[in-house]
Amino acid sequence: MSRIAARRRVTRITVGEYRNSRSDSLTAEEPLEIRVQGRSLAVTMRTPGHDVELATGFLVSEGVIAAADEMLTARYCAGAVDNVNTYNVLDVALAPGVAPPDPSVERNFLTNSSCGLCGKASIDSVRTQSRYTVADDPLVIDAAMIAGFPDTLRAGQAVFERTGGIHAAALFDGATGEMLVLREDVGRHNAVDKVIGWALQNGRLPGRGLVLQVSGRTSFELTQKALMAGIPMLTAVSAPSSLAADLAQEMGLTLVGFVRGPSMVIYSRPDRVVDAELEAAVSTPSDLAASAHEVALDEVEQP
Amino acid sequence: MSRIAARRRVTRITVGEYRNSRSDSLTAEEPLEIRVQGRSLAVTMRTPGHDVELATGFLVSEGVIAAADEMLTARYCAGAVDNVNTYNVLDVALAPGVAPPDPSVERNFLTNSSCGLCGKASIDSVRTQSRYTVADDPLVIDAAMIAGFPDTLRAGQAVFERTGGIHAAALFDGATGEMLVLREDVGRHNAVDKVIGWALQNGRLPGRGLVLQVSGRTSFELTQKALMAGIPMLTAVSAPSSLAADLAQEMGLTLVGFVRGPSMVIYSRPDRVVDAELEAAVSTPSDLAASAHEVALDEVEQP
Repeated sequence: MSRIAARRRVTRITVGEYRNSRSDSLTAEEPLEIRVQGRSLAVTMRTPGHDVELATGFLVSEGVIAAADEMLTARYCAGAVDNVNTYNVLDVALAPGVAPPDPSVERNFLTNSSCGLCGKASIDSVRTQSRYTVADDPLVIDAAMIAGFPDTLRAGQAVFERTGGIHAAALFDGATGEMLVLREDVGRHNAVDKVIGWALQNGRLPGRGLVLQVSGRTSFELTQKALMAGIPMLTAVSAPSSLAADLAQEMGLTLVGFVRGPSMVIYSRPDRVVDAELEAAVSTPSDLAASAHEVALDEVEQP
Repeated sequence: MSRIAARRRVTRITVGEYRNSRSDSLTAEEPLEIRVQGRSLAVTMRTPGHDVELATGFLVSEGVIAAADEMLTARYCAGAVDNVNTYNVLDVALAPGVAPPDPSVERNFLTNSSCGLCGKASIDSVRTQSRYTVADDPLVIDAAMIAGFPDTLRAGQAVFERTGGIHAAALFDGATGEMLVLREDVGRHNAVDKVIGWALQNGRLPGRGLVLQVSGRTSFELTQKALMAGIPMLTAVSAPSSLAADLAQEMGLTLVGFVRGPSMVIYSRPDRVVDAELEAAVSTPSDLAASAHEVALDEVEQP
C-alpha cells in the first residue's frame, strides 16, 4: 500500500480551449510527530514512507545520535484519535547512556504547529485557529487573468535574476488583476509571511477579493497562511500537496496549481474561476471550432 | 544598502571545456529571531529585508494577531554579539488586551535550531554540535560524474512523474558514482533526513567519501544536515544561499550548485572536483582546441 501519492478530483483549464474535470495524483502530505523516549520532540509535515529513516536522520541532524548503536528501537504509537494507529507518531528509544534532547533548551525545529496525529486533525486545528472565513468570499476571476500572474511575478522579482535562487510571493487584486505587493525570500514561507505582513499594515486583512500567488509549490503550511489571512484564492506555478488540497477544499479556498502558459489545474472551489474566452466561443455556434468547445463544455463539472 | 544578495567567489566548470574562478551573486540568508513582548518566539532563516512584515505576517499566520491595531511597535533589538545590533532580532509589542502566544503550549515553528543573532553564530553552532569533520575527507571526484547525478536522481524518482511535486535526495558513492539510496518527500529537509537515516541504519555514518545530491536549492539547513552526517560533498540542481556557501566554506564541505548538463558552479573546496576530460585535452597540445583550453586553465584558482 503506497501512501506517497494520493488521487484527488481536479479541474483542468486551458484558456479559451477546454475545461474539464478528472482525477489526478498529488504528492501525499501528512504530519509526523517524532518522539524520543515517549516525549514529543517535533512535528514535521512529510510524505509518508521511510518514517524510521526520517526520524533517525532528523535525530542525527539535530546531534542527538550519530551512530546506529545509539538507538534501540523506533516504533509507531497508537494515536489519540479513537485509539487508532495513524502511523503518524513515531517513538525512538535511545540506547542506555545516550542523552535525550535537553527539554529545557528552547528548540525551534523545522516543523509547524499543527497537530501530529493525522491530516484531518491538522485541518481542524486551522479551522479552530482562524479568525476569518473565506468560503463566502464572492470573488470570481477570469482564467486568463490567473494565467498572467506568473509572468507579472517573475518580471517584478529583483533578486531572482541575479541569483537564480529565491522564492517569491505576491498579492493580486482579484477584481483588477493589479499586483499589490511582491516579496522575495530564500524561504517560501517567509515570502508569504512578508506579503501577509504587508496586508496587515496596509489595512487589507482579511484579504477578501485578493489572490496570493507563489512561485513554487503549495504545501499545507502555505495554504494555512492564506486562510489565516482570510485570502480566498491561492495560485502557484507548481504542484500542491494532498493536504494542501484537502485543507483548501474543507475551508472553501480556491487552490490553483501548475499555472503555466494558458493552462492551470484547480484543486478546490473551481466555481470561482471562469473562462470568458471559452464561454464566448461556445455562445457563437457559427464559430468553426464550436463543436470542439461544446464537447469540452460537456465535461464541465457543476460548482 | 541591499542585504538581499551577497557576492561570493565561485568556480565554474563546463566539463571538458573550461574551469574558471569568478565572483557571483547569491541569495542572502540570515537568521531572524522573532520576539513578542521581549520573549523569544521563533527563529527563521530568511533573506533580510521587510523584516517587520515578516514578523507580523508570521504572527498573523500563527493566530496571534489579525488586525493592525492589535500590535503597537516592532523594533530591532541589540544582539548579544558585542552588543552590536545585527538587525536579526525583532521584538513586537502587542496592543493592551491582546494575548501573547501561550508559552506553556509546546509549539513547533517552521524554523531551525540555530542561533538567532547572526550567520556567524549559526555557523559556530554547527561547529560545536557536529561529531564528525569533513574538512579532511580525501574525496576527489570527476566533474563528469557529478554532471550525471541529476539524471540518475530523476530517473529513480517514483513519485515525481505522477505528481510533479516532490523533492528528492540521494546518496552517491563518490568513488564509483553508484547511487546508494534515493528518497522523496514533500519537504526537502525530510528527503535529506531520510537518506541520512538510511546511512545511519546501514553503517555509512560518518558519510566519508559520499555525495549528497538534492533536487532543488541548498539552504543553511541542508548544508548543516550534510555536515552533521559527516558527508563531505553536497550537490544541487539549483542555487545555494549565501549562508549555505559560508557554512560549507568554514567547515570544509564541497558545495556544488546549478548542476545542469555539463555545467556546474562550485562554492567551496573546489579542489575536490577535477575535470579529467579538460586535463586530458590540455595535455595534448596538438589538439585543435588546445589554445582555448589553455586560456581557460590560466584562470584556474589554486586550491
